[in-house]
Amino acid sequence: MNATIITIGDELLIGQVIDTNSAWMSDKLNEIGVDIQEKVSISDSFEAIHSTLDRVLEKSDLILITGGLGPTKDDITKKALADYFMTDLVFHQPTWDRIQRLFSKWGRSTTKAHKQQCFMPRDAELLRNKMGTAPGMLFYRGHKMIVSMPGVPYEMKFIMSDSLLPLLMEKTKESAIVHYTIRTVGEGESRLSAQIEDIEEQLPAHIKLAFLPSLGQVRIRLTGRGKIKEKIKQEVLQYGSIIDERLSQFVFGHHHETLEEVLGTLCRNQKVTIGTAESCTGGAIAQKITSIPGSSDYFHGSVVAYSNQVKEQVLQVSEKTLLQYGAVSEETVIEMLSGLFKILPIDVGIAVSGIAGPGGGTKDKPVGTIWIAYGSKNNIRTYLLQATKDRAKNIQYTTVYALNLIRKFLIGLE
Amino acid sequence: MNATIITIGDELLIGQVIDTNSAWMSDKLNEIGVDIQEKVSISDSFEAIHSTLDRVLEKSDLILITGGLGPTKDDITKKALADYFMTDLVFHQPTWDRIQRLFSKWGRSTTKAHKQQCFMPRDAELLRNKMGTAPGMLFYRGHKMIVSMPGVPYEMKFIMSDSLLPLLMEKTKESAIVHYTIRTVGEGESRLSAQIEDIEEQLPAHIKLAFLPSLGQVRIRLTGRGKIKEKIKQEVLQYGSIIDERLSQFVFGHHHETLEEVLGTLCRNQKVTIGTAESCTGGAIAQKITSIPGSSDYFHGSVVAYSNQVKEQVLQVSEKTLLQYGAVSEETVIEMLSGLFKILPIDVGIAVSGIAGPGGGTKDKPVGTIWIAYGSKNNIRTYLLQATKDRAKNIQYTTVYALNLIRKFLIGLE
Repeated sequence: MNATIITIGDELLIGQVIDTNSAWMSDKLNEIGVDIQEKVSISDSFEAIHSTLDRVLEKSDLILITGGLGPTKDDITKKALADYFMTDLVFHQPTWDRIQRLFSKWGRSTTKAHKQQCFMPRDAELLRNKMGTAPGMLFYRGHKMIVSMPGVPYEMKFIMSDSLLPLLMEKTKESAIVHYTIRTVGEGESRLSAQIEDIEEQLPAHIKLAFLPSLGQVRIRLTGRGKIKEKIKQEVLQYGSIIDERLSQFVFGHHHETLEEVLGTLCRNQKVTIGTAESCTGGAIAQKITSIPGSSDYFHGSVVAYSNQVKEQVLQVSEKTLLQYGAVSEETVIEMLSGLFKILPIDVGIAVSGIAGPGGGTKDKPVGTIWIAYGSKNNIRTYLLQATKDRAKNIQYTTVYALNLIRKFLIGLE
Repeated sequence: MNATIITIGDELLIGQVIDTNSAWMSDKLNEIGVDIQEKVSISDSFEAIHSTLDRVLEKSDLILITGGLGPTKDDITKKALADYFMTDLVFHQPTWDRIQRLFSKWGRSTTKAHKQQCFMPRDAELLRNKMGTAPGMLFYRGHKMIVSMPGVPYEMKFIMSDSLLPLLMEKTKESAIVHYTIRTVGEGESRLSAQIEDIEEQLPAHIKLAFLPSLGQVRIRLTGRGKIKEKIKQEVLQYGSIIDERLSQFVFGHHHETLEEVLGTLCRNQKVTIGTAESCTGGAIAQKITSIPGSSDYFHGSVVAYSNQVKEQVLQVSEKTLLQYGAVSEETVIEMLSGLFKILPIDVGIAVSGIAGPGGGTKDKPVGTIWIAYGSKNNIRTYLLQATKDRAKNIQYTTVYALNLIRKFLIGLE
């Protein structure tokens, strides 16, 4: 089954909104063997919606549309679809009843716009949306399916998970796509590629390899296609294991595993508690660690010591050290981490101090100079990261490096 | 001038990567009067690249392509473009010299793949890329421009800012698009819409209104089009001011201003320092505040008190309070904030404690129950937020609410 995703909204075309929906949708569709041919973002206009439908209905079996179902005047998707499929809009009492119930529960009253939202194309099947006011709409045209959903991410996700994906799974049992993704940290795309060139050359035509770099990390993805899922799976797994072994010093996980998830699992398994002392990252490392549900099992807390006063008063960094070596120095991060061990009941920790930029750089310590201390109370190690000139990137880089250093410390690689 | 953005990469179609590039590009292009007609993501295949070029060259004056220029085998964009434009690839010595210099500076050696990257389409104009190895390529076909850039965000941004945008600005002086974006927090899309319905109805046809909701916030965007930029600007500004006034209690800023930026400016202007004591947000509030360059002028630091031990030992929350009222209670957040004032030299602060989920909820305190304390040492106020069932959303919601509460406190609205 081939699909196209259409996201509708002027906000996407003027760059005020980043489209995160279609990545989520693609991922879920791929898992059940639906192949995404194209994603396209178009404006809230009848002409754009109609011409795009004309074009993609030629090539795709499934068209997924998000956006333009809200209660405001710039939301025209429903009307455009009704026109396109030559059907009229009829008032749908159950939707109106549900909206009224929702609003009375929230202690709020409905507006005229909410009532307008209850007019639905006559021949569309409605897909329930427990997360918002507008239900999804499913049109059948021949063997093709056209689905329209709200653009609000959690509403779209609810409709996909609740009704659409189960329905599609029934239809896509025949052909298979298998992915195997290897997640690496600390080595660049070219260098990883050079190290596995011979393996890449041996891959059969139905297995593809791709490198997906992000800050400090590269995902290496094998994609196999074929008729028999189990056979493809076995083949992809076989090549994946060879690459895993070759690149073992850089591999931290697989598929959707994140560095913070892997670190969390390590902490939990080793019954180790963790905390951070952060200057330039401003809490970003703690935030990553606590993004994992259940992280309270191993994460105690952090001190974000942005000013020198906090470094001295809370983390007990000596004034002398700050004066002699500066806030961004090996000596300071060691004292920050030692201080953290004194005030938090943790087994391992991370301390960082650096110049995130854009200001604050000097000739000796340019923007991007970042010191990291990590380890346990009696075994503190340090790392000097020379990052970039960009503030947001430096914070991200430092977070990735810090999480990886403590991960490697826990498994005895550092 | 009309443009289409083509992003190339299987990783976009299987959902492993969220396309943040095209939003940034659209925003920059819009600012200089280039209208984005469509954004489309396609696979790393000759057929997809060629058929999409065929189609969009019909309607757009400018085609911007990102992705597929890396050193690995799945990167085929350059070859596909050379084929499409019937030109051959020739070795470009200056690029090779530059790559070698870069790598020797980094203390690394080049690979064979890097040399391959130096073959360039004969008739393309090269756009320098100081941030990476692959330069941008600009093809002219009649009055149409086709530009290919790497998919790595900071490389694309460099090429756009350094050479492409200045070039396009020369060409787009004739027609104008003007945006006026009002940023609100604390009220939903429908309710805001109802409050300005009469204004919306008076808008002339060449000025459009759109509502762009995100968690806890809604952006209201006016877009005017016309020949004379100054005239349009004045008109849009006039309607914008009327809406600003009507919704003043929800408006915190305009255009690209963020809540954390506005808060930072307030702190700086009022010469007030700030800090946070965070439980369920795990450092997310501090991270937002410190995402702003120069935030060290007003931000001292934070205590992320995830465990009760840290609440007691570092923030001096009494054991009795934790036992009697629980970690998620008005009493606890007040003591957290009082404790923070004792250890950090700050004027105002925020303390939060809540149940982010998915676990930890009870009948009395379901997931999404979040207490916020905010204010100054002698004037601590509290707010109970009933958020959602989703962990990531709850953390985001709490961050938005907390930043807004302290913002309103500073301007005397709370």
